[in-house]
Amino acid sequence: MGELPGIVVTGASGRMGQMLIRTVLESDKARLVGCLERPGHDWIGRDVGTAMGGAEVGVTVTDDALEAFARAQAVLDFTAPAATVEFAKLAAQARAVHVIGTTGLAPEDIEKIGKAAHHAPIVRAGNMSLGVNLLVRLTRQVATALDADFDIEIVEAHHRHKVDAPSGTALMLGAAAAEGRGVDLDTVSDRGRDGITGARERGHIGFSAVRGGDVVGEHEVIFYGAGERIALRHMATDRALFARGALKAALWAQDQAPGEYDMMDVLGL
Amino acid sequence: MGELPGIVVTGASGRMGQMLIRTVLESDKARLVGCLERPGHDWIGRDVGTAMGGAEVGVTVTDDALEAFARAQAVLDFTAPAATVEFAKLAAQARAVHVIGTTGLAPEDIEKIGKAAHHAPIVRAGNMSLGVNLLVRLTRQVATALDADFDIEIVEAHHRHKVDAPSGTALMLGAAAAEGRGVDLDTVSDRGRDGITGARERGHIGFSAVRGGDVVGEHEVIFYGAGERIALRHMATDRALFARGALKAALWAQDQAPGEYDMMDVLGL
Amino acid sequence: MGELPGIVVTGASGRMGQMLIRTVLESDKARLVGCLERPGHDWIGRDVGTAMGGAEVGVTVTDDALEAFARAQAVLDFTAPAATVEFAKLAAQARAVHVIGTTGLAPEDIEKIGKAAHHAPIVRAGNMSLGVNLLVRLTRQVATALDADFDIEIVEAHHRHKVDAPSGTALMLGAAAAEGRGVDLDTVSDRGRDGITGARERGHIGFSAVRGGDVVGEHEVIFYGAGERIALRHMATDRALFARGALKAALWAQDQAPGEYDMMDVLGL
Amino acid sequence: MGELPGIVVTGASGRMGQMLIRTVLESDKARLVGCLERPGHDWIGRDVGTAMGGAEVGVTVTDDALEAFARAQAVLDFTAPAATVEFAKLAAQARAVHVIGTTGLAPEDIEKIGKAAHHAPIVRAGNMSLGVNLLVRLTRQVATALDADFDIEIVEAHHRHKVDAPSGTALMLGAAAAEGRGVDLDTVSDRGRDGITGARERGHIGFSAVRGGDVVGEHEVIFYGAGERIALRHMATDRALFARGALKAALWAQDQAPGEYDMMDVLGL
Repeated sequence: MGELPGIVVTGASGRMGQMLIRTVLESDKARLVGCLERPGHDWIGRDVGTAMGGAEVGVTVTDDALEAFARAQAVLDFTAPAATVEFAKLAAQARAVHVIGTTGLAPEDIEKIGKAAHHAPIVRAGNMSLGVNLLVRLTRQVATALDADFDIEIVEAHHRHKVDAPSGTALMLGAAAAEGRGVDLDTVSDRGRDGITGARERGHIGFSAVRGGDVVGEHEVIFYGAGERIALRHMATDRALFARGALKAALWAQDQAPGEYDMMDVLGL
Repeated sequence: MGELPGIVVTGASGRMGQMLIRTVLESDKARLVGCLERPGHDWIGRDVGTAMGGAEVGVTVTDDALEAFARAQAVLDFTAPAATVEFAKLAAQARAVHVIGTTGLAPEDIEKIGKAAHHAPIVRAGNMSLGVNLLVRLTRQVATALDADFDIEIVEAHHRHKVDAPSGTALMLGAAAAEGRGVDLDTVSDRGRDGITGARERGHIGFSAVRGGDVVGEHEVIFYGAGERIALRHMATDRALFARGALKAALWAQDQAPGEYDMMDVLGL
Repeated sequence: MGELPGIVVTGASGRMGQMLIRTVLESDKARLVGCLERPGHDWIGRDVGTAMGGAEVGVTVTDDALEAFARAQAVLDFTAPAATVEFAKLAAQARAVHVIGTTGLAPEDIEKIGKAAHHAPIVRAGNMSLGVNLLVRLTRQVATALDADFDIEIVEAHHRHKVDAPSGTALMLGAAAAEGRGVDLDTVSDRGRDGITGARERGHIGFSAVRGGDVVGEHEVIFYGAGERIALRHMATDRALFARGALKAALWAQDQAPGEYDMMDVLGL
Repeated sequence: MGELPGIVVTGASGRMGQMLIRTVLESDKARLVGCLERPGHDWIGRDVGTAMGGAEVGVTVTDDALEAFARAQAVLDFTAPAATVEFAKLAAQARAVHVIGTTGLAPEDIEKIGKAAHHAPIVRAGNMSLGVNLLVRLTRQVATALDADFDIEIVEAHHRHKVDAPSGTALMLGAAAAEGRGVDLDTVSDRGRDGITGARERGHIGFSAVRGGDVVGEHEVIFYGAGERIALRHMATDRALFARGALKAALWAQDQAPGEYDMMDVLGL
């Protein structure tokens, strides 16, 4: 009993939180030991299995993060910047691995998270899927192999509820392409093309954001040359993908020294 | 001899002009009788075949539009708004068909062209390809069949020299989708998404513009629903497509009464 | 109580069976009144909710089809040909709507189902999604509009467990294309291209089957012309789509006279 | 005068031959010194420029290969196996570079070509484009990074005149994928899926061949995993691409020792 690493999931009632909970429950390599929600949420005090509309699972939703983290080996956290910064501090205190999938972190948030990483391993990634991380590496590599005779365009599609554009993953791909070319993304990025734009500038990297339906996440990097093009594409069709990636990161990080890691480290890319 | 309809091509030295000339020369349903360039252009007075780097074809480039139109049954014109308005007047005077592929026409240009159409047939189309015009019709129809549970997105790609976004054809597709839904495109169009956009609004129509390489023209209309999507796509891979469409329009319009026509009329869609 | 139409789901333990059950349970327009499995299956006698690993739902799995059908207004059936033929007979006896998503039915199976339809409404469709049925209609229409200068190719992709190729839906699309052209699909279909095939024959319709991962179902009909192509594409990303379509068919058919129907009837296409 | 390397093009009247000729004529790094056709062809003795319907270029079409090769630094050859084997022998005799784009070579043809390579550099490639050769390398690399949980499928599309399937390039991609996985392509390839195929076998590599219109050449390698997929895609839209690659190979090989080379060598991939 208790030999499997214990996992806490934050933001338990959210779409991603529930996906993480289900993923941990279905795994034979980890066990669910805690679920967090914010004080006052009506799931507090309820069994998380029945709160999710299923069978009882024996884990009660709580708002006491430190107490929950103290019983766990790792925390899976896809919430919001302010909460994540607070959780990083508490996870460090509890010496628990903190896996961060939260997006929209400001530089000062990242700095605070960096301090917490002195005390426990933190894995932070804009995208937890194997495929996307591989795509990032390929993008850098192709951008290095081809010169600016090839125009780079990044097209992404996400569901109708997404509030920002381009996606964090698209920007990560753009940064990889810019790095491959030895330029700074900020000086070459073409975003939100509309109206009289003039001809495309040589060396620029374009971004397009498509929004609709329940698209989980699709990213394509296209290199347009003369008479030919190369496209590298990733399509996620199941949100569980990101939950599985997060759990994989948690299990991997257990054996690591305190410090900051990303999915490239986890996947050994 | 002389029984085939005589065609004049304007903007002879441009990429599209040369394509039109080659298309007419290769056709066994029409003959080239004139080529226009602006006064002072260094092709004036030269045989257009040799000017294009090939064999002599017996047609000298001129800057006298009226004289050329008077010898022709039709004028193929993919130039610029100011020139096209002037050509419309002169073609009307010469009672020659005027096929207009020029884009970027302002409402007042269109009004002047409309007046010229009292005297001779004018075919004006944002896109002369059979496929694109069929796509416009399908878009309207699918937009009518599906309600706003389906989010409509239009993605287009063109070569790096294109100076405006979205393309005229993309806007034509957007207008067809809006018409199918009984709404006004201007009130529902989402262009140039960038930054914190908020969630997608129900009923909106999104546009994305990809630019790179020598892409001739690609348009996709996607209807994103819950758990499914439908996409209607057109890809042009050869600019000659538009030249063949223009010539087809010229031949068709010969037998029509004066008036304004579009490719739907020509293609019988 | 009992005012909502009662639904029975067959093949309760299968992947599609469970999806149908969840769809009925989540619907506010129908209620689950029975679940069938074959005699001897270990779910027999158990509450279907707990058998599926969730909370109790108050419906016990049974192997007595006639008794279950007698308590229901409609039966949702995605099983196998032999079972479906038997269920058709019993549903007719019980005067219950029979919605059939079973594939691989032989002509003699279809004949028997036809007889059952004298007594109760039967909706049978190779694919229950709105999008696919719309795609079928568009395919016929475009095939009618374009002549054999355009080569028609149908490419489909499905998960790695699918045992037949091309998919039933791909064949349905091929039949629609052939019908649009006024030819018989059997005489023009190109399947399983491999080796020295010779040049493509004018007027033929090609099929390609891609298999991999957990792809729910993707179909594309491409019309390749000179310098241009049109593609009509459908992608299903959630199997629940077919379950929702089946339930929609059941509710619609309740008010119909005995007879055979398809999704075009249900959707009013 | 005469400082630029002299090039001979074989199969001058064919579609690819004419493309090669135009590419050499337009290049400022090489000059056309000879054009070959088979004995009896009606272009023999004519100026190749006028034979192609353009202006005179000062090169007469001949059927005397050895005499032509003796005046040249390199031979560009996209003809048929029997002719290519003969040309290899003669080019070796003339100590001229032989760039071979001919497909369908049998093992015994390749052996004979290998012998000729003792006397002069030979560049032989199934596909001369930069993009395709890069795609081959990426395919091997991704196949190495992902295990057989990812199903590999290769889909290619070509024009209606192509007589074999899958394309040589698709097989080259399949071989790269198999190599990346450390397996033999022949034991894992799934070609021509049709009928009752059974479930996809783990570790297999599938091929699909789409044929239509004037498609120059499109190749896609897709890795289908659970909830995600990665696709690597190349599209050629202009046959001149292959001609430019062949000329690039000829110029590169001038400075090489006798021996066999491929495009990876030329491109430094």
